[in-house]
Amino acid sequence: MGGGRLETVSVDVEPPGPGELQIAVAYCGLCGTDLHIVHGNMDARVRTPLVFGHETSGTVAAVGAGVEGWKVGDPLTVMPLIWDGTCAACLAGHQHICQNLVFVGIDSPGGLQQRWNVPASIAVPLPAGLDLRTAALVEPAAVAVHDVRRSELQVGDRAVVLGGGPIGVLIAAVAREAGAHVMVAEVDASRRSRIAELGFEVIDPSSADMVAEVERWTGGVGADVVFEVSGAAAAVRATTALAKVRGTIVVVAIHSAPREIDLQRVFWRELRLLGARVYQRSDFERAVELLGRGVIPADALISGVVPIEETASAVADLSAGRAMKILVDVAGEGRA
Amino acid sequence: MGGGRLETVSVDVEPPGPGELQIAVAYCGLCGTDLHIVHGNMDARVRTPLVFGHETSGTVAAVGAGVEGWKVGDPLTVMPLIWDGTCAACLAGHQHICQNLVFVGIDSPGGLQQRWNVPASIAVPLPAGLDLRTAALVEPAAVAVHDVRRSELQVGDRAVVLGGGPIGVLIAAVAREAGAHVMVAEVDASRRSRIAELGFEVIDPSSADMVAEVERWTGGVGADVVFEVSGAAAAVRATTALAKVRGTIVVVAIHSAPREIDLQRVFWRELRLLGARVYQRSDFERAVELLGRGVIPADALISGVVPIEETASAVADLSAGRAMKILVDVAGEGRA
Ligand SMILES: [Zn+2]
Ligand SMILES: [Zn+2]
Repeated sequence: MGGGRLETVSVDVEPPGPGELQIAVAYCGLCGTDLHIVHGNMDARVRTPLVFGHETSGTVAAVGAGVEGWKVGDPLTVMPLIWDGTCAACLAGHQHICQNLVFVGIDSPGGLQQRWNVPASIAVPLPAGLDLRTAALVEPAAVAVHDVRRSELQVGDRAVVLGGGPIGVLIAAVAREAGAHVMVAEVDASRRSRIAELGFEVIDPSSADMVAEVERWTGGVGADVVFEVSGAAAAVRATTALAKVRGTIVVVAIHSAPREIDLQRVFWRELRLLGARVYQRSDFERAVELLGRGVIPADALISGVVPIEETASAVADLSAGRAMKILVDVAGEGRA
Repeated sequence: MGGGRLETVSVDVEPPGPGELQIAVAYCGLCGTDLHIVHGNMDARVRTPLVFGHETSGTVAAVGAGVEGWKVGDPLTVMPLIWDGTCAACLAGHQHICQNLVFVGIDSPGGLQQRWNVPASIAVPLPAGLDLRTAALVEPAAVAVHDVRRSELQVGDRAVVLGGGPIGVLIAAVAREAGAHVMVAEVDASRRSRIAELGFEVIDPSSADMVAEVERWTGGVGADVVFEVSGAAAAVRATTALAKVRGTIVVVAIHSAPREIDLQRVFWRELRLLGARVYQRSDFERAVELLGRGVIPADALISGVVPIEETASAVADLSAGRAMKILVDVAGEGRA
């Protein structure tokens, strides 16, 4: 896999073990982490060959021994985290960032397979009315719900989202639902126009004076919350200039290199900078609810659905920045 | 003043204006900010000639028109902040970091004068039992109280203080009083031995493997709170390596240049980084109480008391790192 080679193979279906559900996977979204896996950036962590994929929807195909509350045909998604329950993080109630976390689809087999056995404990039920295509967005939407919850954003707040990819747009949507006014900074013009169509303020950080614009937009006060979703060094530098006195900066993106931060400004304005990673169960359930209510602009986010054999070309499209979110139609033809 | 020239001059004493108290200043501590002023690093902000000094104690010498609750002879200190009460920070309850804050002793005349007129609103009463020499530590102790309060440190927490100068030692003392176990990292050997005598864990970050030592000290968990008091770039890099999952980093020091931070670690462990600047009234009152109860090691912190004519040489000693806290005996001989 490290060499970037993707293969689709036929394997025998194993029945679900005790405590497991077998899932007939319907859709599986591709995300930035998947690109890193395919490109070999995560070879130190990933054991190959790996079935990746962690943004899934499907139905129950079989119920393992001892599993209660589920029956064949139930729609579901998977919260792809397995914690040890015993480390200091778990004991403090932060199981989602367990010091020995297993991320399903990275550290163990994921959802890009037609029959997928998972512990029933990580299955999350879906409401009957939510179509499975939309439901493949639950996982990234849960990231956004977690980021917004971490920020302690209040009704009426002004939030700036740096980076208008899928996670940035999801954060914008969740923040708006929470009562905030939202401005998204994005360098790509086609993404900007799509985001503007969704009713958000947009700004091009490569041409506009972002600090002056945010000052104007906030009446000279500065942003209540700044979400750093871009991963860019320049965006990190901007965060401290954009946030108001006692404002909050949430670090959502992965920054592979140390970044320069204006700590003088952090001190002067008593800023708060928070890391936010994955989600808790309540975030996942909230994401299901928001998607069910149509709060998340699923159609605008899903730029394509491809059969499983075309996963490799979809990864290439995403890597080239030619798409927002691409779903793999894992079940393929014959599915309702 | 920018040229580093200090003069002691005789001036006529003006009576206190309406709403003011005239203070017979007893002691005034010198701090790092004063050094910056004298060395000209703050020329862009400071109008010279300036009477500086903001770590003061004294007694009421005269009471201005309309001032209630004070009488001649009352012991007091001054919280040297004047806010506008109208900016966004003030309206949000963060008057201490008002966007138009006047810091008395930097932006307006300070306490290195024998008769000092200040608004009664910034005077803070001292208990009768607290000697005025010790009371000159209220202001820096209030900084430490504010830093610890910002950190939301809990009983039983393990806190690492990076930098064992006066503020670092004050933070260590306040954190211990709040129920924490405290380790202080300090490069200077004589400071380290003084800090060890106060009963704190000490470590030399220039020779020890600080991350390994803190891991060991915390049973592999990491520090609950890390206070960055040193101002050093290397210390900033260490903060993220030392803090536990969901740990807190408090930026106390002034960092004149942007600093590199490991945002990957901030993300991975969902760390929280907080700026902390000056203090609120409640911090000041708490500092008075802690000094009154003997919780703050005042004698260990005060390395010298000099007459006002020797302020210049005291500043030189502090600049050379030859002292912890030096007080100026403003009243001079004849004071009880
Ligand atoms: Zn754990
Ligand atoms: Zn103000």
